[in-house]
Amino acid sequence: MKTNPGNFFEDLKLGQVIRHAVPRTLTAGDVALYIGLTGSRFALPSSDSFAQSLGYARAPLDDLLVFHMVFGRTVADISLNAVANLGYADCRFGAPVFPGDTLSATSIVIGLKENSNKETGVVTVRSTGVNQWDETVLDYIRWVMVRKRDKAAPAPEAVTPDLPAEVGVQDFNVPASLDLDDYDPTLAGSPHIWDDYAVGERIDHVDGMTLEESDHMTATRLYQNNAKVHFNQHSEAKGRFGRRLIYGGHIISLARALSFNGLANAFRIAAIHGGRHVNPSFAGDTIYAWSEVTGKSELPGRGDVGALRLRTIAAKDHPCTDFPKAGGDGKYPEPVVLDLDYSVLMPRGRLGGHRGR
Amino acid sequence: MKTNPGNFFEDLKLGQVIRHAVPRTLTAGDVALYIGLTGSRFALPSSDSFAQSLGYARAPLDDLLVFHMVFGRTVADISLNAVANLGYADCRFGAPVFPGDTLSATSIVIGLKENSNKETGVVTVRSTGVNQWDETVLDYIRWVMVRKRDKAAPAPEAVTPDLPAEVGVQDFNVPASLDLDDYDPTLAGSPHIWDDYAVGERIDHVDGMTLEESDHMTATRLYQNNAKVHFNQHSEAKGRFGRRLIYGGHIISLARALSFNGLANAFRIAAIHGGRHVNPSFAGDTIYAWSEVTGKSELPGRGDVGALRLRTIAAKDHPCTDFPKAGGDGKYPEPVVLDLDYSVLMPRGRLGGHRGR
Amino acid sequence: MKTNPGNFFEDLKLGQVIRHAVPRTLTAGDVALYIGLTGSRFALPSSDSFAQSLGYARAPLDDLLVFHMVFGRTVADISLNAVANLGYADCRFGAPVFPGDTLSATSIVIGLKENSNKETGVVTVRSTGVNQWDETVLDYIRWVMVRKRDKAAPAPEAVTPDLPAEVGVQDFNVPASLDLDDYDPTLAGSPHIWDDYAVGERIDHVDGMTLEESDHMTATRLYQNNAKVHFNQHSEAKGRFGRRLIYGGHIISLARALSFNGLANAFRIAAIHGGRHVNPSFAGDTIYAWSEVTGKSELPGRGDVGALRLRTIAAKDHPCTDFPKAGGDGKYPEPVVLDLDYSVLMPRGRLGGHRGR
Repeated sequence: MKTNPGNFFEDLKLGQVIRHAVPRTLTAGDVALYIGLTGSRFALPSSDSFAQSLGYARAPLDDLLVFHMVFGRTVADISLNAVANLGYADCRFGAPVFPGDTLSATSIVIGLKENSNKETGVVTVRSTGVNQWDETVLDYIRWVMVRKRDKAAPAPEAVTPDLPAEVGVQDFNVPASLDLDDYDPTLAGSPHIWDDYAVGERIDHVDGMTLEESDHMTATRLYQNNAKVHFNQHSEAKGRFGRRLIYGGHIISLARALSFNGLANAFRIAAIHGGRHVNPSFAGDTIYAWSEVTGKSELPGRGDVGALRLRTIAAKDHPCTDFPKAGGDGKYPEPVVLDLDYSVLMPRGRLGGHRGR
Repeated sequence: MKTNPGNFFEDLKLGQVIRHAVPRTLTAGDVALYIGLTGSRFALPSSDSFAQSLGYARAPLDDLLVFHMVFGRTVADISLNAVANLGYADCRFGAPVFPGDTLSATSIVIGLKENSNKETGVVTVRSTGVNQWDETVLDYIRWVMVRKRDKAAPAPEAVTPDLPAEVGVQDFNVPASLDLDDYDPTLAGSPHIWDDYAVGERIDHVDGMTLEESDHMTATRLYQNNAKVHFNQHSEAKGRFGRRLIYGGHIISLARALSFNGLANAFRIAAIHGGRHVNPSFAGDTIYAWSEVTGKSELPGRGDVGALRLRTIAAKDHPCTDFPKAGGDGKYPEPVVLDLDYSVLMPRGRLGGHRGR
Repeated sequence: MKTNPGNFFEDLKLGQVIRHAVPRTLTAGDVALYIGLTGSRFALPSSDSFAQSLGYARAPLDDLLVFHMVFGRTVADISLNAVANLGYADCRFGAPVFPGDTLSATSIVIGLKENSNKETGVVTVRSTGVNQWDETVLDYIRWVMVRKRDKAAPAPEAVTPDLPAEVGVQDFNVPASLDLDDYDPTLAGSPHIWDDYAVGERIDHVDGMTLEESDHMTATRLYQNNAKVHFNQHSEAKGRFGRRLIYGGHIISLARALSFNGLANAFRIAAIHGGRHVNPSFAGDTIYAWSEVTGKSELPGRGDVGALRLRTIAAKDHPCTDFPKAGGDGKYPEPVVLDLDYSVLMPRGRLGGHRGR
């Protein structure tokens, strides 16, 4: 058989290393299309001159564009036969990626646990994206529920890896060349810097973005993510939802893009501690988002930049003025589609006199 | 409050200068997406070799792409609380923009006039886009009707600026390096040059382009224009039209792209004297356009290039064989959506023997 | 009349050479958008590093992107008044195209035959695309049925050119610099190389892609193909199908993109021997594809690369598990939309030890 059936649960072995196919050169074309599909307005990936004012050679790619590109590489090997994408953890953004860089990805299987129904099992992998100099640009754990090809295939020894509850501040990648002396909040779009946010503060990002089939498919194709459920209305019409399911990563991107209104100075995502796609999204849904500041950290040796830990929640067809979230029973109200726990970098302190200008 | 509520009428002061957020580096990615979204076929922004034959270092960006990018910067500060975008005037295209250039924008408030209902007022601004060397690439006046936050807020002294009826030919930016000796009309797509057009001539651009939600939203997101009415079906369903309103600039771009069929040698827009979005456009509408030549001008010191003043009118679901336009009462027939008064540059004279080849 | 009515049958003369308008610089923006619109995952056009491992200076553009760009140039002159695009033959891909190259196109009329109804005639042209150094990047024959302006116009002497049944292997362009010693099938996405395919083998490409209006229009606009039937719902509503017809080339691109699953190492299209759009496609259709290996050829002087001749058939709303094709009567089952006869290059032999890694 010449086609790739993808790996089933019993095809994956603990410790197995998978080199994923199709290295991908990222370009200004990907950058433009990412802005066109998400409406993201963060200044750092939008502007060479702004990036240069922070010590970058030029504008690095949006962190989530990098995430989706690395994730896209892994799909054919890890989640082609997945029933559900269960979660992310320990996701660290590494070396910045610039137009012209080529990303490749590998994964190692770090957990395998057959489900009691013997029809599926949970696979946990650590996936790593590197650039053409083999520098790590992204590193994350993902666990997915994968079908077995053969219910009778013997179960492997169950291994559920310990997942870190968070990425430690000491593991955040802060480029040595980063220099916020000339950071200009006005150009970035908000006067509010790290110092101005309080733990417990909640921010309704106000705006909404309606999803179209063409948009989410174009985004997902751009990432060369070939999960079938996103593209094939003919088969999905007979499937679980009767419709094409939107790649969860597109929802993360929209939530981040919406969060510009309230978090414009969050110039970089340092880490994703955890994330869950709580409900599916479909074309026609309008995505709203809100964020809670769940932590504030100084960064070792840096007086000019701090980290905010955020919980960003996206909901569909439901403005987030009431800050919808999981209840005490861990259950989410129906409109919630995403619960993302992550940390961003934000300027702090005096900022070379630009503050309030 | 961390989110940006936008400026209300009473927040803006006469003479106030606003530095807009998010400088934007324009790239080959934006160029490709602009062609993909509009179908524009003008040779100058399509081709490095054609541009070089005219004395440019490489293909400059489409003038309207530059316009939308500068306009996009201004929305969050000027028109987030606008009820209506009333008009444009005195719009001059300056230094050509090339891939890699970074544009920033500022606006100065030049007019304020509260409406008699005390709920809104007319704000007039002059907005300027500059490149990374602070050269002006675009300069225009726009007036919008903006909501007041508080009906009781005192009215400022009413100032309605004198708006020039046109941009004078002497203010058209014609690069000194422009050299039309090797201009090849065949490659540009039409044998008809400046000499061939007559004042009063009407041109039906024949073709039509149907609008899709995904297309106009992608265009508007690309420009980082965050006006809410374009993106949020959930809220617009309850709004004035029950639907997402299409960014008027996208209609201008489609009209210009359609005008290639009849005006292929109009290689540059020199100025927009005025423009009005007469009716709203929505997904599903098909845009047609026609143009009238309303003036012809020689340019000081140039025998190889002239200016045509054009009135381009776009209509929806209505082929322009009957040249729809405003009647004597100033009222437009229902299908008309755009009335644009502008000047283009076009080669004239012998053209180094290419004529008619 | 300033607009271009396109050529009618009687406007074209045997031997006439047409220089098509609008040279087009291809960029990383076009590459990204092509991936976004088709989901293509072939490694060579996706990755500079992969391309460099094969001896290219950087990633060349996807062969079909080049095809569509050259084809797009020809539409305004050749097929604006076409009733039907009848077929392709003798299509050879030449010098690789890289971002920054500018393509121009010319056509020569090699066949003219009026139909017996005197309302249309068959026009056959050879179209050639060249880069800025006048190197041929693509060369193909196309024949179309074109309307007459005037039924009474006299018929030209009927000339039906002999069309080659295939492009000979000796005419395949294999860059001298191509070096497959370091070709890595794992990175390309499949362990199956030339040696592993057998004549007569049939491959169901499994996956399906649903067509959206926005996607096919954006693709076709990107190529600056201005055939009216693809864009104007207002007029097409009254037309033959009541809907916008999708550019057949977009279906070819989707079929090729889908064929990655089963033919990932087919790194280059060398030639298209023939092709027919058997049925029209519309938004909402889901495209599936399958391929038959119809030939295998060694290439003169090369032990590292071979050619596979393929028949790729695309069908709509019909998974290709039953390998639908024309019956003995030459008639195609209704779901079939495309029958493409072409040759691809694929690595063969030892591959520097990468095989099976």
